[in-house]
Amino acid sequence: MTWKNDLAAVASDMLPRCGEGRVADYIPALARVDAKKFGIAGIDSDGVTAGAGDYRDPFSIQSVSKVFGLTLALLAHGDELWRRVWREPSGTSFNSIVQLETNNGIPRNPFVNAGALVVTDVLVSKFGRDGAISEILSFVRAVTDNPAIEMDAEVAQSEADTGHRNAGLAHVMKGFGNIENPVDDVLHVYFHQCAIALCCADLARAGLYLSCGGTDPVNGRRIVPTLMARRINALMLTCGHYDAAGDFAFKVGLPGKSGVGGGILAIVPNRLSLGVWSPGLNEYGNSLVGSLALEAFVRRTGVAIF
Amino acid sequence: MTWKNDLAAVASDMLPRCGEGRVADYIPALARVDAKKFGIAGIDSDGVTAGAGDYRDPFSIQSVSKVFGLTLALLAHGDELWRRVWREPSGTSFNSIVQLETNNGIPRNPFVNAGALVVTDVLVSKFGRDGAISEILSFVRAVTDNPAIEMDAEVAQSEADTGHRNAGLAHVMKGFGNIENPVDDVLHVYFHQCAIALCCADLARAGLYLSCGGTDPVNGRRIVPTLMARRINALMLTCGHYDAAGDFAFKVGLPGKSGVGGGILAIVPNRLSLGVWSPGLNEYGNSLVGSLALEAFVRRTGVAIF
Amino acid sequence: MTWKNDLAAVASDMLPRCGEGRVADYIPALARVDAKKFGIAGIDSDGVTAGAGDYRDPFSIQSVSKVFGLTLALLAHGDELWRRVWREPSGTSFNSIVQLETNNGIPRNPFVNAGALVVTDVLVSKFGRDGAISEILSFVRAVTDNPAIEMDAEVAQSEADTGHRNAGLAHVMKGFGNIENPVDDVLHVYFHQCAIALCCADLARAGLYLSCGGTDPVNGRRIVPTLMARRINALMLTCGHYDAAGDFAFKVGLPGKSGVGGGILAIVPNRLSLGVWSPGLNEYGNSLVGSLALEAFVRRTGVAIF
Amino acid sequence: MTWKNDLAAVASDMLPRCGEGRVADYIPALARVDAKKFGIAGIDSDGVTAGAGDYRDPFSIQSVSKVFGLTLALLAHGDELWRRVWREPSGTSFNSIVQLETNNGIPRNPFVNAGALVVTDVLVSKFGRDGAISEILSFVRAVTDNPAIEMDAEVAQSEADTGHRNAGLAHVMKGFGNIENPVDDVLHVYFHQCAIALCCADLARAGLYLSCGGTDPVNGRRIVPTLMARRINALMLTCGHYDAAGDFAFKVGLPGKSGVGGGILAIVPNRLSLGVWSPGLNEYGNSLVGSLALEAFVRRTGVAIF
Repeated sequence: MTWKNDLAAVASDMLPRCGEGRVADYIPALARVDAKKFGIAGIDSDGVTAGAGDYRDPFSIQSVSKVFGLTLALLAHGDELWRRVWREPSGTSFNSIVQLETNNGIPRNPFVNAGALVVTDVLVSKFGRDGAISEILSFVRAVTDNPAIEMDAEVAQSEADTGHRNAGLAHVMKGFGNIENPVDDVLHVYFHQCAIALCCADLARAGLYLSCGGTDPVNGRRIVPTLMARRINALMLTCGHYDAAGDFAFKVGLPGKSGVGGGILAIVPNRLSLGVWSPGLNEYGNSLVGSLALEAFVRRTGVAIF
Repeated sequence: MTWKNDLAAVASDMLPRCGEGRVADYIPALARVDAKKFGIAGIDSDGVTAGAGDYRDPFSIQSVSKVFGLTLALLAHGDELWRRVWREPSGTSFNSIVQLETNNGIPRNPFVNAGALVVTDVLVSKFGRDGAISEILSFVRAVTDNPAIEMDAEVAQSEADTGHRNAGLAHVMKGFGNIENPVDDVLHVYFHQCAIALCCADLARAGLYLSCGGTDPVNGRRIVPTLMARRINALMLTCGHYDAAGDFAFKVGLPGKSGVGGGILAIVPNRLSLGVWSPGLNEYGNSLVGSLALEAFVRRTGVAIF
Repeated sequence: MTWKNDLAAVASDMLPRCGEGRVADYIPALARVDAKKFGIAGIDSDGVTAGAGDYRDPFSIQSVSKVFGLTLALLAHGDELWRRVWREPSGTSFNSIVQLETNNGIPRNPFVNAGALVVTDVLVSKFGRDGAISEILSFVRAVTDNPAIEMDAEVAQSEADTGHRNAGLAHVMKGFGNIENPVDDVLHVYFHQCAIALCCADLARAGLYLSCGGTDPVNGRRIVPTLMARRINALMLTCGHYDAAGDFAFKVGLPGKSGVGGGILAIVPNRLSLGVWSPGLNEYGNSLVGSLALEAFVRRTGVAIF
Repeated sequence: MTWKNDLAAVASDMLPRCGEGRVADYIPALARVDAKKFGIAGIDSDGVTAGAGDYRDPFSIQSVSKVFGLTLALLAHGDELWRRVWREPSGTSFNSIVQLETNNGIPRNPFVNAGALVVTDVLVSKFGRDGAISEILSFVRAVTDNPAIEMDAEVAQSEADTGHRNAGLAHVMKGFGNIENPVDDVLHVYFHQCAIALCCADLARAGLYLSCGGTDPVNGRRIVPTLMARRINALMLTCGHYDAAGDFAFKVGLPGKSGVGGGILAIVPNRLSLGVWSPGLNEYGNSLVGSLALEAFVRRTGVAIF
């Protein structure tokens, strides 16, 4: 169980850097988070868990939720989804509209905001507005094995109040015919999905199916086919960190997905699922200390995929 | 009164080409217009008028209305307006969003859709939602000297139903802080402004103040200061035809503003105001036969500004 | 001869501002020019001339020369030229390459560097490398009526030494098949054209054919057809100041072409040709005090085209 | 040795598709290659080799050579290289210039042409023009363990004759100060590097150090540090297939680098190095059948990294 020791050592090494980076402040609920928080947790394919720091504190997972939305949409819609969203790194920031116009309303990938809105639209078409929210919440409760998981209503409302850019993206795609449902419904579901609150332990647990070929090894349940799990991992590697995806692959070398709340889910295929959290963001909107912690963990353990 | 003869001759010359181009079909009210319609009218600085073809048929002026909205916003807001919208040709199509992102929500000029939405927002801030509609309508009735001018309610509603791109532009600018009022209010006013119906004779009459240094020579009323009239003309020349502004300046050589309904207002400073209409559009969204007619008129009369 | 008094008054008004702006320093010959220099000269359609300030000091006309290159290419190649270069404002800076790729090697207009390189290529195809230089020089000597005009060899050499961006533009267009001759030949001619040295009086004299419908009123010679003169003026208005063309049209309202040496040629159709020079540039690379002087002159004289 | 059987089976499965895609025809030496050629070879970390099809036919590796140039530049220059080239997927095609302007002459990654030219410039600075060519050739001979490897002089010359776009890229970067040596020298070395001819067996052998943590397991020599090998693999995954990198990661899921000659080097970390070749390209300029073969091989063997 050497990785557990490594996790603790990494947490200890990160202490002097906690508080670095810039906490997202576009909504009050994010702005008031303590910048010095840091947590990291992992779970291996035998179900062994470990955590360090503030790994039991819930935080807003924000864009990390796109991984779960994508999983549900692929289960609901299959490869048809890829007619409405590409699978290429964007070369631009998370909320860019430039690319949408050039590509006739087809987003570059499901992990930029525009792509996640299309994914959400697929869920609304399948389950309805309120049904989509229920499905997402049920899915996250199932993969975390934690029925207490909730969406933070205040966060969802704040997102809606300030989400002009996302509204703009959705309307533009609607203009291109790539959003089927009313824009307000899609945004409603999207903002609720982003408002899911998890702690690092829950987050690591939630990603376990991606590190175990699509199956949850704790209870033996198959969540997605093996090939789908691999492909989601591939997308996380190439597209999971906006226009810093290449840098994250270079330095950390693991599939990962970050959120503006400071969380990152990282997957070591066939080995581990890791959740890390530290609210301060780097210039690309990814957790600064969280990224450093993952880089340090990979160096210590040598769990590289490359 | 040689220009009156020239006008008639041009109308006659255009007959074989009527029906060329592609009629806008994104809303029913535009799609059902007879593609073969063609009208042209002029009024000189002595108030002498002439017309040919279907110059008494009202049509939806659409983006030509941006000239009147801009005039009102400049009167209301003065040069402060130029902090929120630039005065440069866009190099892109009328509803491009690419440029907005690059320029932090500041549109290139008041004649692309994004810029006209900012102009509309200024009017909503000044007059309120319904007040802005009243002001615009009153202004157009005043400059046409025609109290019967109306906004076409069906057209306004259709625009609202299909105007996802404009909604997208407005939300994106709201995200950048460049729209002050609720997006729905701004769109409501914008779509009503676009839905003004004028005939060619009304349109020419409406532009008379721009060809006469800001004063209406028929009734002696000053509409705008002389410098403002000149500057609006300059903007029409450099920005009045989207990404075909250079081509229009090259071929026609007059300040002009086109609309997707097939209308064009063209100004011969100190001489004439011209209204032309033909529903078929060229690849840039400007009236195909209308542009040809203006080019032919300039060749015949030699009324060039260059 | 009231405009002569206005010219003197404008020169006097500009004195306190001389030295503002940033002198181009990418080559030594430009960098060492005295920033406080200012000259202005005009010639009307009767051949009456006037000047003020340093209007007899020669300076490097740089991009103003594109007007003369374009005139020669249109005479040599006619409207065929427009298959290889557009006539639209660029919406980008003078040496942008972005647009070239998007448009498959076709520059936006003949007054951005890429467009001027295509124009030069046309001249090289017609006259050969050395012949093209001779033709350009002969043309400028003819329209200035000054056989002493020269190209500054030091400037041409400096441009060649530092002109990597222009070389890049030319090679990219060559890759798209829009440059016929060896890139080095085209650059050689282009840099020599830019190195023409004129004083304000010569510059105003050189533009006289554009303000007089294509004919030189002093000697009665026709330089270009009237329509061609008008169209060159139209291009100067929409494209003559890079991405500040709209602003120049708004504030000055005259066809004009600027150069990085601080010179501007401005045309009042049927009235005047004006040459102004002040080395300090504004943020767009156009003469700061030169632009102000033209704006002031137009206000005083009311010679607007709009 | 089950993977050897899989390799043979894949080669057999590909037979009906051989000839699909479009052979590069911009130079004669590539255009005359038989479109129906297909070869695949592998070597595992025990040095066991296998091949099928035309795996002994040499072909022009073109951009696959960027992997070896990068390796040499990292050995020569270390992490300093990353000040002159980024590590992000480009979101654009292999020879795009748009991005260069936006990013002040810093290419997105070392595997787009602009980035490879910077890498080449580093080698020219270190070894001189002819020395750089010798170093590259020596390196490839060393890692293939084949002293007979050569650069194809005809191909290098043809590339030079038609390489206007690459010349344009280099001149533009020179203008931004990101090329230190004369452009002609950099291009000379670059075109020679691209003209290396390898067969699939050689190509697989050449990549062995990347699949074995930086060491050549056959002779025990360390080529690069382990971390550097991992990072080159990460770059191949995120950036190795131009604007189809995401698709290749999604479908194949291995680090890989393609060339316009139809070759692809693919790495299974800690397991295998694979070389595949089929001249017909897909719309993104990557070998169509080669990509399919790798996808099929991964499915059969389950050697995914994700």
